[in-house]
Amino acid sequence: MKKVKSESPSEFRLDIVSGDWVIIATGRACRPETFAKNTRIKEAVLPANCPFCRSNILEKSILTLNKPDGSWFISSIPNDFPALCPKGGLSRKEEGPYEIMNGYGEHEVIITADHERQMAQFSQEEMELVVELYQKRYLDLIKKENIKYISIFHNHGQEAGASVAHPHSQLIAIPVLDPNLRSSLDGAEAYYRQHKKCVYCEMIAWDIKDGRRIIYQNEKFVVLSPFAPQVSFEVRVYPKKHQAHFGEMAPDEKALFADAFLKGLSSVYQKLKDPAYNFYIHTAPVGKEYGEYHWHLNILPKTAIMAGFELGAGIEISVIEPEKAAEFLRSE
Amino acid sequence: MKKVKSESPSEFRLDIVSGDWVIIATGRACRPETFAKNTRIKEAVLPANCPFCRSNILEKSILTLNKPDGSWFISSIPNDFPALCPKGGLSRKEEGPYEIMNGYGEHEVIITADHERQMAQFSQEEMELVVELYQKRYLDLIKKENIKYISIFHNHGQEAGASVAHPHSQLIAIPVLDPNLRSSLDGAEAYYRQHKKCVYCEMIAWDIKDGRRIIYQNEKFVVLSPFAPQVSFEVRVYPKKHQAHFGEMAPDEKALFADAFLKGLSSVYQKLKDPAYNFYIHTAPVGKEYGEYHWHLNILPKTAIMAGFELGAGIEISVIEPEKAAEFLRSE
Repeated sequence: MKKVKSESPSEFRLDIVSGDWVIIATGRACRPETFAKNTRIKEAVLPANCPFCRSNILEKSILTLNKPDGSWFISSIPNDFPALCPKGGLSRKEEGPYEIMNGYGEHEVIITADHERQMAQFSQEEMELVVELYQKRYLDLIKKENIKYISIFHNHGQEAGASVAHPHSQLIAIPVLDPNLRSSLDGAEAYYRQHKKCVYCEMIAWDIKDGRRIIYQNEKFVVLSPFAPQVSFEVRVYPKKHQAHFGEMAPDEKALFADAFLKGLSSVYQKLKDPAYNFYIHTAPVGKEYGEYHWHLNILPKTAIMAGFELGAGIEISVIEPEKAAEFLRSE
Repeated sequence: MKKVKSESPSEFRLDIVSGDWVIIATGRACRPETFAKNTRIKEAVLPANCPFCRSNILEKSILTLNKPDGSWFISSIPNDFPALCPKGGLSRKEEGPYEIMNGYGEHEVIITADHERQMAQFSQEEMELVVELYQKRYLDLIKKENIKYISIFHNHGQEAGASVAHPHSQLIAIPVLDPNLRSSLDGAEAYYRQHKKCVYCEMIAWDIKDGRRIIYQNEKFVVLSPFAPQVSFEVRVYPKKHQAHFGEMAPDEKALFADAFLKGLSSVYQKLKDPAYNFYIHTAPVGKEYGEYHWHLNILPKTAIMAGFELGAGIEISVIEPEKAAEFLRSE
């Protein structure tokens, strides 16, 4: 194999799980600081007009967790505009060559009490309550009939698709697999069949030894810039030990996950100056299948320079090497 | 199979090519007109400051086509900030479990002379020049060594990622497959192996017979709202006859493709009141593989209501049924 010339203006990197190539276009390289030019649209929605600040907001609460002082901190409530509905069971029908299924599922909104304070500003104790609530709802919903996948995600800022400024996460429980996840689930299984090892465990071990892409680590979790990122400054949080399901995380691991999660979010918040972002948890689906998958959390910041350099519907492009992104994000 | 209740607030529809489910969330149904509330940011970049209006812009022209009066109409030029570079051949290297390849490829920008007039406003004659140029560049680039896929796409408006207001398409020639396309290429082959028929030919025949999703058709092409769309008001243009490659389109077909393409774009422009949008051509890759694929053009409008109702990184959601979208787009 020939060596790649270092003066190459860009490179393809293989996502060895999904099999997709991404582009790192270093020909446009900018200093990391230039990404922090904040253009985020900040809505001036006052608590008085906020749908999540209504005094009766906890009336339909599914699960609420309180602070030590007894005030409520976080609550899961039904989505007022659900994309999915759990009534009537699952039914499929054909229509010519096509197939339709009713919109079976659950759609919850997870809100915190404070209208202003975003997750990157939470304390360790508060983040532990977030993780506790996420996992409790997850473990409850996987028991429901016909549910194949639980997706927990968070959109922060209008550019990231948040329609309400008040910090909120969403949870959907669906009878099908998330299509973004499917190629990675299949890829992880295929890697295991070939190498008898978890592909994520391999990458994590390599990255920790290599060090360049590591942003933070504690005893049980690592926060890193992935080798083949989907966007500039993508951050992932992985359990170091092999664990397929988000629901398997033990009590002593939850506090360490909260620590790593908070470090990932706060590095993005501080270094990129409060950008819009999405995060989501990718986990093995409900059931015994895909036991070789390795759950993790992805944080995808929307940086100022990103727009306009996407190749339409094609390949993902980052304009900063993940090694430089990690160096910037972990700096004091 | 049980019947889906008509009062269901939403439904899953299967993309029978890729195998992915999408959600049609009709519970939030709005009249189609409400999507046309135009919030597109219109840049006030004057031709004097436009990089594509420079007097010497054709100096590096790769291919330019003129109008009958001899003035230039459309030109393909090298991208000033290429994501890819064709020099030095293709080389791969490993790095621990990872794989890297140099950023080999071509990246061209296809501009039209007029700074203001967008493609939806073109005449039939002008659109034929667009199609002519797209196909000529395509046929030229597939001959180059190591090129596996040619992606032709167009971003219109800042919300769709266009960094320059002057109308321009882009073309990239890459040594790997577009990851968005791969599951559909594999799906089309798998369908053919099972049914001995092209899955797209099947869907097109059904849709034409059914009629509800058809926006326009001529002798050789059909413009329709897909059964399982990626976004609200997605529009696709398909050749009616099986054809795997965009490059195979014959001279008499090109004028009819230009007609259908223009009808698709102008219905989006007129009915949704000049929204931002992306379009791209999906075609079988270079070579003999994937001969059961069926090339087509996808137009993805960015409508006012879309933001905020995406499920993070998960499943695609449309908030209008494609049957209603088609009815609205084809109305006089």
